[in-house]
Order: sequence, then structure tokens, then C-alpha cells
Amino acid sequence: MRKWVYTFAGGMAEGSSADVALLGGKGANLAEMSRIGLPVPPGFTITTDACNRALKERAIPERVREQVNAAMKYCEMMSAKKFGDLENPLLVSVRSGARASMPGMMDTVLNLGLNDATVEALARFTGDERFAYDTYRRFIQMYAIVVMGLDHSLFEDILDGARENEGAARDNELSAAALIGIVQAYKAAIIDEMDESFPQDPHEQLWGAVMAVFKSWGNPRAATYRALHNIPEEWGTAVTIQAMVFGNSGQNSATGVAFTRNPSTGENKLYGEFLADAQGEDVVAGFRTPDPLSAIEDKPGASMQERMPDAYSVLMRLADDLEQHFGDMQDVEFTVENGKLWLLQTRAGKRTATAAIRIAIEMADAGVITRKNALMRVDASSLDQLLHPAIDPAAERTIIARGLPASPGAASGQIVFSSTDAVAAKAAGKPVILIRPETSPDDIHGMDASVAILTSRGGTTSHAAVVARGMGKPCITGAGGLRIDPHNKALVAGGMTLREGDLLTIDGNAGEVLKGELPMVQSKLAGDFATLMEWSDAERRMKVRTNADSPKEAIVARQFGADGIGLCRTEHMFTEGDRADVMREMIIADTAEERRSALDKLLPMQRDDFIELFEIMQGQPVAIRLVDPPLYDFLPKSEEDLVASAKRLGIDVDRLVRRAEELREINPMLGNRGVRLAICYPEIAEMQTRAIFEAAILAGKETGEPVVPEIVVPLVSYVAELQFLRSHIDTIAADVMREQEQTIDYLVGSVIELPRAAIRADFIAESADFFSFGTNDLTQTTLGISRDDASTFLNTYLQKGVIGLDPFINLDIEGVGELMRLATDKGRNSRPDILLGITGEHGGDPTSIAFCEDLGLDYVSCSPYRVPIARLAAAQSAIASLTDD
Amino acid sequence: MRKWVYTFAGGMAEGSSADVALLGGKGANLAEMSRIGLPVPPGFTITTDACNRALKERAIPERVREQVNAAMKYCEMMSAKKFGDLENPLLVSVRSGARASMPGMMDTVLNLGLNDATVEALARFTGDERFAYDTYRRFIQMYAIVVMGLDHSLFEDILDGARENEGAARDNELSAAALIGIVQAYKAAIIDEMDESFPQDPHEQLWGAVMAVFKSWGNPRAATYRALHNIPEEWGTAVTIQAMVFGNSGQNSATGVAFTRNPSTGENKLYGEFLADAQGEDVVAGFRTPDPLSAIEDKPGASMQERMPDAYSVLMRLADDLEQHFGDMQDVEFTVENGKLWLLQTRAGKRTATAAIRIAIEMADAGVITRKNALMRVDASSLDQLLHPAIDPAAERTIIARGLPASPGAASGQIVFSSTDAVAAKAAGKPVILIRPETSPDDIHGMDASVAILTSRGGTTSHAAVVARGMGKPCITGAGGLRIDPHNKALVAGGMTLREGDLLTIDGNAGEVLKGELPMVQSKLAGDFATLMEWSDAERRMKVRTNADSPKEAIVARQFGADGIGLCRTEHMFTEGDRADVMREMIIADTAEERRSALDKLLPMQRDDFIELFEIMQGQPVAIRLVDPPLYDFLPKSEEDLVASAKRLGIDVDRLVRRAEELREINPMLGNRGVRLAICYPEIAEMQTRAIFEAAILAGKETGEPVVPEIVVPLVSYVAELQFLRSHIDTIAADVMREQEQTIDYLVGSVIELPRAAIRADFIAESADFFSFGTNDLTQTTLGISRDDASTFLNTYLQKGVIGLDPFINLDIEGVGELMRLATDKGRNSRPDILLGITGEHGGDPTSIAFCEDLGLDYVSCSPYRVPIARLAAAQSAIASLTDD
Repeated sequence: MRKWVYTFAGGMAEGSSADVALLGGKGANLAEMSRIGLPVPPGFTITTDACNRALKERAIPERVREQVNAAMKYCEMMSAKKFGDLENPLLVSVRSGARASMPGMMDTVLNLGLNDATVEALARFTGDERFAYDTYRRFIQMYAIVVMGLDHSLFEDILDGARENEGAARDNELSAAALIGIVQAYKAAIIDEMDESFPQDPHEQLWGAVMAVFKSWGNPRAATYRALHNIPEEWGTAVTIQAMVFGNSGQNSATGVAFTRNPSTGENKLYGEFLADAQGEDVVAGFRTPDPLSAIEDKPGASMQERMPDAYSVLMRLADDLEQHFGDMQDVEFTVENGKLWLLQTRAGKRTATAAIRIAIEMADAGVITRKNALMRVDASSLDQLLHPAIDPAAERTIIARGLPASPGAASGQIVFSSTDAVAAKAAGKPVILIRPETSPDDIHGMDASVAILTSRGGTTSHAAVVARGMGKPCITGAGGLRIDPHNKALVAGGMTLREGDLLTIDGNAGEVLKGELPMVQSKLAGDFATLMEWSDAERRMKVRTNADSPKEAIVARQFGADGIGLCRTEHMFTEGDRADVMREMIIADTAEERRSALDKLLPMQRDDFIELFEIMQGQPVAIRLVDPPLYDFLPKSEEDLVASAKRLGIDVDRLVRRAEELREINPMLGNRGVRLAICYPEIAEMQTRAIFEAAILAGKETGEPVVPEIVVPLVSYVAELQFLRSHIDTIAADVMREQEQTIDYLVGSVIELPRAAIRADFIAESADFFSFGTNDLTQTTLGISRDDASTFLNTYLQKGVIGLDPFINLDIEGVGELMRLATDKGRNSRPDILLGITGEHGGDPTSIAFCEDLGLDYVSCSPYRVPIARLAAAQSAIASLTDD
Repeated sequence: MRKWVYTFAGGMAEGSSADVALLGGKGANLAEMSRIGLPVPPGFTITTDACNRALKERAIPERVREQVNAAMKYCEMMSAKKFGDLENPLLVSVRSGARASMPGMMDTVLNLGLNDATVEALARFTGDERFAYDTYRRFIQMYAIVVMGLDHSLFEDILDGARENEGAARDNELSAAALIGIVQAYKAAIIDEMDESFPQDPHEQLWGAVMAVFKSWGNPRAATYRALHNIPEEWGTAVTIQAMVFGNSGQNSATGVAFTRNPSTGENKLYGEFLADAQGEDVVAGFRTPDPLSAIEDKPGASMQERMPDAYSVLMRLADDLEQHFGDMQDVEFTVENGKLWLLQTRAGKRTATAAIRIAIEMADAGVITRKNALMRVDASSLDQLLHPAIDPAAERTIIARGLPASPGAASGQIVFSSTDAVAAKAAGKPVILIRPETSPDDIHGMDASVAILTSRGGTTSHAAVVARGMGKPCITGAGGLRIDPHNKALVAGGMTLREGDLLTIDGNAGEVLKGELPMVQSKLAGDFATLMEWSDAERRMKVRTNADSPKEAIVARQFGADGIGLCRTEHMFTEGDRADVMREMIIADTAEERRSALDKLLPMQRDDFIELFEIMQGQPVAIRLVDPPLYDFLPKSEEDLVASAKRLGIDVDRLVRRAEELREINPMLGNRGVRLAICYPEIAEMQTRAIFEAAILAGKETGEPVVPEIVVPLVSYVAELQFLRSHIDTIAADVMREQEQTIDYLVGSVIELPRAAIRADFIAESADFFSFGTNDLTQTTLGISRDDASTFLNTYLQKGVIGLDPFINLDIEGVGELMRLATDKGRNSRPDILLGITGEHGGDPTSIAFCEDLGLDYVSCSPYRVPIARLAAAQSAIASLTDD
């Protein structure tokens, strides 16, 4: 006979915490607690299989009913009460509990078993008629809504009327008589609506509630949640039925929630709150203010420790048992009934990043868990909270717009609408927030001068987002609800108009644009954090490099423990000050000779850039990408800038305008950039190559650490493109080495960022020492989505559930990942020792990093502020892959 | 012992035409002719293997030399002359001949064996001292340049000086004495340059010439040619050494070239020209005008037929033998020496498309070849010549600019610079050529009003190109040398300024912009053409559909034999007249309701469009693609048009401008279009679906032929996108069928035009009845190349030899093709009967069609004017695949 029901009671249980798939998280943990002898009210769990069967048959199967009836008898015996009894009636809770936590998504019914007769028995038994009828009222209301499908407002209206009649401000001021009246009114309203009366038979109540909880697995809210969290529909929910215990049986009773450690700080001290003479619902409802569990100075005599010392010491001991047994900090619901402490639920407690780290490390140090386990306990993404300033949690927020959380952290400042204004304001000592429809390389100096960036267009990998993350500044992109008017320096949002100089706060973690200036808190990188990183480094196989374009970023990344530079984008080096004009001189040149003469001026600047980077990285690998964006990006855009630039260059403005028009592209992302530019204008790549080799030799002499530069060729799709560039690079390398009379090693490789490159990786690998997976562009081309234009429809896709994850944040493993796997296999086939790394934004995303571990990449590379996240995620991936094998 | 040398002479030969890999085309055919008893001067061929060996060893191996020496002896015997003899010296030609024809890429040395002594013998033997020294002069010059590596100009200068001295206008007016002087001067110049004298030993001359011809396989010109034509370097060249015969031994001697049939018309009559008392070189040099082979009225008595009736009748017979033997029209070089006719070379003759068809059909009818062979004899691409008007070949051309040959045919007209002007000029009865930097859907009416289109931007699959091909109008795109100034209605090109109304001619086949109006010739689709198509249809497996958006195109395609519509782009239906404004009304709508009200106006128009198409196609399949381009494309672009449109719509122009700004995208190709649009604004797809089903039922009733519409969902990358659309389509289909009380079959499928769709094709096939390979966009995304911006670097790539073929014209089989193969395999895995077709521009390209046959696609679809090409190419692919198996 198939087992559909698993009982637990009095130090025994048919299931255990291993049965989470069958019994759900709640049911499995209740069974486990009972099994190891912890005080749990008797009960049983109906399996997820039964749920699936019932949903398929649209009724609870007879065999399930039989087993439920038997389990109820067992509960009656173990609780010494009887279901529907007129002396000491057994009341039960009916609660959902799925394999994965789905907070608040499904339904629950409490106090089941009450009817017109048992309510009287309860009143007698507790000696509190008001309580008995209030419980009955709540039960009727909950049951009618959850099981019978009636509307909330029906009952709220009756309750409001009664309160008005009695002049009661709150529910718990209602008299027993009033509550009896309400119960009558509720029952009448149900007959009115349904043409049937509220069920008086406790068993009928039970079947109704069980079926309703089963069905709530399929409600739209739950279905959407599942789609978003990749929870398969076929898992189904379990239902746990458990004897009610009453924390409101007088001053020797109580209800409360305990964390075995402090969930904010991680301190190893019982933390939580309780209410004496109360039921769990009262804590939630907020009519009474709960008291602390442990004694505190502010509220002398209020704590459970002082008021119920016996129960408190039992709780302390049980908390310790739970932690030892489950090996993690627990979030426990408990009730004290007439001095006896019952545990109603336990689960791993949610905690802040700070707490997570401290708890994990202390538990490992105490030998409760291994260091590997400790590392797995910290959500890598959550470290972001520790690396950036955050808004004081106590501050009041007025949200005026929402956008994409493009770069974490928070900052307040005066708003400006152009980069020029940002630079001027910064010079005047003002913290400013730069607001633009979108940003371009022209805005780098403005972004650098600002404390935060806000754009109305673009996704999480738009120019603004990428640059802001590199700078470690909060940024919100794609805030479509904003109407930005740069000409008039005004912003319309949330029904208000803001002008230059007005104060805003940007919450880059939440993607919220907030009114005014808010107080900030700066988390410290505590000693625990350093320990965590140390343990991570001991476990991880993959190197963690950084994407850094400037000495500033390189220094930050080194402080965060980067193992080298995975991607140095050289184009940012051409947009600062004087260089911008020299670059433009090169672009408007008509002949290769004119271009070379401008490039000769850029050469010493580039060489100095590289020397500085090489010196900072002290012999660690540095991968430098040849200039990638289309030339158009380097030309001024506005009329004003065009005129000024032409004047500085001493040329006719028409010539500059004409050249810009020639270079303008319809789809610049797919235009003349990357290796294409290098083939059309080989002089540029030649200058860069020369600068790299001269710098490598000079820096090597300076620091004594030999530099092995890695030259990265972007946007390759044909092997002939790489061969073309490689032969230029090899020639120049030989020239420089001869001139400098020193030989150095170097690598030349290809970015794999176009599908064709992945498909032809076996051939490309013959000319490439390494592959650098450029997953930003590979995502754009594989999915045919421009990240700059994606926000208009990707948000709709997420809302309509067409996709569950933004492919620019979490690597699209099924599509883009498949191409990466192909390229990895083919590349290794041709060149078994090929160096493989990822340099797209995904290099800082934990789930994407896990996939990189699976592919066996040699390194991930991410923005400086994500390096610690990547170090932990790489360690977690390495540990997980051990388990998989 | 390895055989390095193959002799041929006097009705015998060691090789045959089967040995083309070893002996090259020329050597193999000479052997074959000798083998079957045709009169060929004795000679031998050194193999390609010997070439490879010699190039590797940097010298002619001793074993090769031995065999060459033996072969020379054999030649002496068979020619009854002696190499280096002082009475009757044997002179030889040393000619290259590779496996594939590489015209003019490698070197040749003629008249080898002459020296200071043998020249005298030759003078005595021919009784013509002038001729002997002229031959010697030519030999020294050719040898010094080819073998000794001296410069042309060295010899030209000496020759010029001698001509001046003698007052001779042409070389053949130089006296024997002058030629003797030139020979002396040549020899002195060689000593001057090389510090060594011109070799007098005929054997030394021979080894020098052979090695030089071997080496010419590796010259840069040949290497580039090989790269472009995919000829492997390891093939090498053969060298043929053959006894010289002299067509200049008096009036009973001659030299000439004969085609066994007329290469222009295909007429089965000997065609060609000859020169009496001359050598082959004289025909090429053009000093004398050759006479016709066969008698013609214009030149009575001049023909070979009249002047050398015996040799002529031998030639006639030999021509017939050659055709019978080789089974194709031959291009033959011959020499008559003292009345005896010698054949020096034969090969398949080049011919016009008209001739190719006529010859193939007549040969098949005569039983010389099979019908399958006949089909293989016609170059499918060449049919283009027959389907469009062409410039009279006799007309003089002044090229003022070059661009990409985007749509074939030619036309002359007055130039205009806007679509509005084009429409006005057409109304005034003027033929006009529309000139734009690039075109957009706004230009459709202007393109329709023009006889040809010229753009300075865009590639061969840009908007202008695609639309022009669909319309069958000549078009040149990407003519970067033009400077177009639409405001002033002026065009600067080739150093001249043209203004509105000036006459130009567009040659869409050659991509040439020509000055003035040129005379045209209109080829007729002769009876042979129809026969060719009939035979093609009997052989081909794949269906040939057409890409047609309008009834006009559909009618043309039907006349050209299309098997249905593979792609009907519905967006073109929204850009004409009133509809454009209704479309804009829809786009600026703020709510789904407002959008629906505008769409309700479009519904009957769309329905009528589809009814017309269905009726024209008479039950053949019609695949309709839901609207694909971004909404921005439908909005007016110029200030003027914006104001006018806002006025007509009765809205504030600012609202239109604001909406346009919201919809503007950085990379529209990768933006909110295709299925994304349909998910963001489902109303549009719903209207289109309703129009399709209503039209299908109505047209089916009208014609009696049931319509099975195929609904094509563009730009799918996630299966969830297709599922989303499919459920909408199925619902509406059910609604319409219920309303119309009739059930019809229909198919819903996906365009595979994004790499992710190919990778996930197994999952997509579960919801798709068919895949339509959109290889234009698949090429754009797989290679990361915007076709609108590609001309700037793809031309450079082609010039620098980085790529050999334009991937937008010839399918990139290694990259894009690999994804198609993946999608085909995965699609069939999930749905074995899935319908597969290609609808990109490649569907009309013969090499791409061959690949589609290889994949086993069900159909190709191309622009109407390419349907005949595709029918033939499909037949050829089917025949070739039989051979492969």
C-alpha cells in the first residue's frame, strides 16, 4: 500500500528532514524535530504525491482519506484531545509546505475543528468566551475566503460595523457578546452568498481545507512565482495538519519567534521576540508590541528571560540542539502553553550578508560545519551589500521612479543634466548625480565627476551601467518613467518636476530613484570578510581577474584580490582631455601617413598608460584589448562640441561634420569596429601594439617582474582576421624586442563574442593562444538583442513571464552557454593548453561563474567591485563540482 | 620508377583527359587529342607532382631532368627536328597548365631553343631573316622577363628607340637589320643588369624556363587568385613543352582560333577567325585584322573557307570530332603550317547565357549528351542576363562611379533626389532614377515610380537592394564615391556635378554608374529557355517559392514558375498612402484600446491584400510573416513630413516627435521588432492573424482552391516567444472559423534568423510546423555584421583577401551554414515531418541553393526575377547529389 501520510508526535516520526521532496520543507523539519525528541505538537503531513494525485483527479482519493483518518486518530491519542469533542476539542492547523520555500504564495487554515458546539467547549476549557468566539470568528473568515472562495470585503464590512457599534478602535477591544454577534452575521452572510451554510462537521471542514490548500499550488500568484524561480509545476505541495496549541492560555503561556543567532550581526546570542498570553497571529497583526526574548537594559523586566525563566532556558537549550542538529542558524516559531514550550516550525534563518559571514565562520571555527560548508552558506551576490555604501534602513523613502539596478551602492546629490555641468559642479565641491537619456564615451569625465548616474534608456550592460560598475558608483538605467529634458535642465518623474540642483538619492541596489537626501551607512570590511576570502582562495580552481581600464580601477581590484587584468579596454584611454583631439585628428586624416602622424602623438601616452598598469599589477597577467568601438564614437556629437573641436584642430567644421556623417552607422554594434577597424586602418593597432611591447619591457625592467602581455583581438569571426592581425603584431613585437634588445613572452588571442567565432573555434584556436569569452556581445548577437535597446521589451518579457531571467545579468546557459561549450571543446581540440576566460559582465555573476567552472575555464574577469563576489562564487563552484563528481 | 613526364605525339599519348590533376587542363587535353588521333605537334607534359617536388627542393630533381631529356629525344624523333640543331632546329613552347583554369596568372615562354646560331638556321629554313630575328628578339625579351626577372621597361625602351630610328610606327615595320641591332642591344642590356649573358645553351634555356614556370605558381597574383577561387596551394601547376609549328611560313600557312559553335548565339556553325602567314601572337597583338573562318557576304573572298578550302574542311571535321569526343562546344587554337593543320589547344568554349542554353539543348536533342548533362552545362547565375534589359554591348561607356551590383538589369533616366520628386516626375511621364544616401520604407512609392535606384550606402541586401530586386529594377548600392546632397538636389561624382534632371544610366549587373543615356537591348525568353525550365522542373526535388509582398510581384513570380510564396513581408502593406497615417495613429496610441481602434481600420485593407495574393497563387502555399520592423520605421523622418503627418492625424506635432524619440533605437536591427513587437503589442499580430484567416476562407470560397495559410513568426529566440504567439494565433483562428462556419488547415512556424533559435531548434520545433531560414538576419547576427553598414569594411576585406566571398551574396556555409545544419538536425529530431525552407536572399544564389539541397530543405524562396535561376540551380543540385551518392 502506497504511503500518502506521514505522522510525527512524541519523539517519533515516520519521515525526516531528508524527505523534503515528499513532505515539503515545513513537514520534513517538523518530522525531524519530533524524531530527535524535540517538543512538537502531534501532527502529520500529506505528501506532495497526494497533492498531485488529488489535483489530477479533482478530488482527494479515497485511499488518502483513509490514511488521513487514521492519522487523525493517532493525533487524538497523542494529544489526549478529540476532534469535534464537546469537552476538550482537538483543533488543528492546515498548512501548505512545498519543497522550495514559496513565502505567502499558498493558503493556510488555522483553528480548524471549531463549530457552534465545540466553540462552547473551547470557551469552557479555556475559561475565556471572548477568546473562543474570536478564534471561531477568525476561523470562519479564513475558511470562507480560502475554501469557499468568498471575498475579503464581505467580512471586513461586518467587522467594521461591529467595531463602530461598540466604539471599539481595535478588534481585541470587542466584547464576547459582540464577537458572538459577528459569528452570527458571518454565518448569515455565507448563506446569503453561497446558498449553503458554513460547514459544522469538523471532518467536512478538514477535507475542504486540505483540497483548498492543494489547489492553491495552482493559483496564478504561485504559478508566476514558480515560473520566476524555475520551480517545476510537477513538484506539488505537501499539507501539514497539526494539533493547535494555545499561547493565550493565561500569563504562563506565550507565543514567539526566535533566531538562534542575531540575523543582523551574526552575534551568537538568542535573538527574537514574544508575546505573553497571545497567539502567533497577534504578533503578525501588530496590535500589541512584542517583548524581547533576552533581557535588555532598555526594557527591564520585560523579557522572556526575566518573565518565564524556565521556558526561556528550555528554549536556549533547544536552540542549541537545533543548530547542532541542522548545522545552521535557525528561525524557530514556538508557543508556550501553560508553561510547556512547543516548537511549531524551524528553518534556516534569513540573515544579512554581515551575519551570514560571521555565522558561517564561527560555526566552522566551532567545528559544527566544515570550511567548505561555511563557504556554501554565504550568498555570493549578497557581498555587494558590504562593498558599497547603503541607505540607512531606518530612513523614510519617497520613490519617484524605478529603473534597473545597474550598479550597486547608494548616493545622494544635486542633479545635473550634462557632463560639462557635472564637471563644473564637482569643481565647485558639490556632489552631483548625472542624469542623461543615455551615456556615451563623451560622458566619461562627467560620470567620473558624479557620485551616481541615472539614465532613462539602456539595460544593465549599457554604457552607463558598465562604466559605473567599473567606477564603483551607483547607477540606475532604463528608468523609462522619467521624462528628461536636457535642454531645459528639467526632469519630470512621479508627477513632479525637478530642476538642476535639486536633491535626489539613487539606490543602485534596488533600482529606486528617491526624493531628497537620505542618510547613508558604510559597512566595514570586517576581519570575518578577510577570512572568508582566504578560505575561498584555498578552495577555488579558477583565477579571478578584473576588467580595469585605468590605474584607479586596477588599484581597487588589487585591493579586492584580483589575480590580474582580464580585460583592459583601451578606448577609454582616448577620450580624456587632449587625447580626444589627437584621436579626432587621426580619424579625419585622409591618408595612412596623416593617420600615422597623429598616432605618433598618441604612442607615448598609451605607453605610459600601460607602464602604469603593468607596474600596479606587478607581474600578474594583463590582457589588453585593441581598440574596439566604431570611430564615430570618438567624434563630438553636439553642434557646440563639433565647433569647439574643429576650432582646436584648426580645421573647417564642415569637414568634421562630413566625416562624422560618413562614419555614422545604422547599427553601430554590428558595424566597423574591433578587428574590422584594425584591418581597415592597421596603423591604429600597430601603434597600440608598439605601446604595449615598449611598456612591457620598460615596466619589467622597472619592477623586476617580467611582464607577459596578452593582446586581445576583438570581434573576430573569420580566422583570416586573426591571422591578419597576428602577423602585424608578431612583426612589431620582433621590431620592439630588437630595438630594446630584450626578448619577452607574449600571448595573442581572440575575443569569442560572435556566434561564428564559436562555431569556427577549432580553426581560430590554431592562431590564438587564448580565448576571452566576451559574453556581453555574444549575448547580443546570439539572441539578436541590443543591450542598449533591450529595456523596452525585456521588461515586458519578464512581466509576462516569457523569460525568467535577464540574459544580460544571468548568462543564457541554454543558448549562449551552448556556444561557449562548443567553442571550449573545439578550441581545446585544436590547442589542448589554450587559456580560456570570460570577460563579459557575467564574469561577476555567481550562477554564470558556476557555469564557467563547469566548462573548466581558467579564469573569470569582472569589474573591480565584484572581485570578492567572484572569488567566493568560484570557490563555491569548485566545491559544488566536487560534490557532483 | 615514378613517372614525372608524359609524352604525346602522332596519334599516341601516355596521358589522357582523365589526368587533369596530374597534367593540368592544357596538358591533359593535348594528350587526349593526340590519343584519339587528332593532329597535335609532338610534346610532353611535366606533372604537377614534379612542380611540387621542384618547389620544395628549390631545383628540378635529377630524376625529372632525366625523364625530360628522354622526352625531348622523343619529340625530336617525332618532329624530325633537333633541339639546337644548326639546320632545322626544334623550337619549343614552355607553357603552364593547372588543374583549374587560372587565365593569365602564370608564365609562358615561346620559341625556346633559339640562340645566335639557331636563329641563323631558322632564317635559312624559313627564308625570312626578318621573321627569324623578330622571333629571337621576342624570345630573349620573354625569357629575360620571365626567367631572369628583368623589368619590362628595359626592353620597351630599346624597342621604342629602334622604332624612332627607323621611323617605324609598328613593330612589324622594323627591318631585319634593325631587329638584329635590337637583339644585340637586348643582350648587352642583360649583361649590364645581370653581370651574366643571355644563355646560349638550349638546354640551359629549357631548365631555366621550366623552373620559372613552376615558380610562377607561387607568384602573388596567382596566390591571390587561388585564395579567391578556393584553389588549394598543393595542387601545383603542370608544364607542357611542345614543338613549335609556324603559321607564318607563307600564304599556305595560317593561325587562328575556332569555336565549334557560335559563342554568342549558340548557332551550330563553325565560328572564329584566322590570319594567313602569321603566328598566334599576331592575332593577340592586333596589328592585323583577322579574317573570318566561314564565308560571309560582307567580306567576299576573305574567309579561310574560300582561301584555304582544304584546311577549312579538315578543321570542320576536326571540330565535329572534338565536340563528339568532349561532348561540349570547344574553343580551339590551330595553326596551318604549309597546308597542314595542327591543333595546339582545345577547351570548353566560354559562351553567353543564350548560347549556353541553345547549345545544351541542341546537344541533348542530338543525343551527344543527356538532358541531365545539358542542365549542368548552363551557369544558373548567367540566366540573370536574360531576364533583364541590358546595355547594348556596342555602346560607349563613361563610368562616373562604381558601387555594388545590387539588382540586375540596366536603365537610363533623369536623376531625382527624393521619392516625392520621383513620383511627380513619373506622373509627368519622365523615366527617373532615384538617388538617395539610403532608402527606407518611406521610399517605396518613390522606388516604384523610378526605373532604377542608386544609393551611396548599404550593401547588396540593404533595403534598397532587396526592394529593387523584388521590383525587378536595376539598383546600385554602396556607391561610396558619390557625394549626394539631397537638399541642393545635386550629386558630385567622377569630378563632375550633376543636378536634378540630368541623365544617367545604371548598369545593375556591373555596378556601374554611367554618364548619359545609353541604348538598351531586351533579350527575349526564347523557346529554348522554356525547354530548359521544363527539364529543370523534371529533375529538381526542392520547390522554388518566391518572396513577394504585392500582387504585382506575385504575378511576375507566377509567370516565372514560382511554386508559391515563401515570404510575404506584410510591413510593406502599411506604408502606402492612407495606410501610413492609420499605422501612425496606431503607433502614437497610448492604450491598447486606442491601438485596436486604429487597427480596426487596417483590418479590411489587410484582408483585401491577402485575398488578392491567395487568388493569384490559386491554392499554392503562401507564407505570411507577421509585421517585423521596429515601429520607428513607420514614422515620418523629416521635419516637413512630421508636420504634415501630425496635421493629417489632427495631433500636436510634439506628440509625434516625442513618440518617435521614444521609439528611436541605437541598433534597430537588434531592437524591438519581430515577435518582440507582437508580445509588447499583441493587438497588431491579432489584427494580422484575423485578416489572414478571413482572407483565406473568403479566397478559398472564391477560387474553389482551399487555402492553407502559413503564418510566419519572425525573430524568435526563446521557444516561449513562439508559444505566446501561437496561442494567440490558435485562438483567433478558432474564432474566425466559428464566425465563418468553415474549418481550414493552417501552419504556424518560426523564422530561424537568430543563432539562439538554431541552437534551441529542437525545443522550438515542438511548437513550430515549419522553419523558415531567414539567412539575411542569420548572417547579420552570426557574423555580427550589419548589412547596412557592411560596405565600409567588407569591400576592404575582399580587396585584402581576408574573405573570398560576400557572405550576404553567397551563404557563409562554414558559419551560418553550420547553424542551419544544427537547426535542421534538431528540428527534424523533434518533428520528423517539419517543413523547411530558406527565404533569405541566398535562396536565389546557386551555390547557396546547392547547400540547401545538401541539407534536404523542402524549398528555397527568392525574389521573383530569380525564380528561373533557382529552378535551374535546384535541378543542378539534385543532379549533383545523385552523383555524390
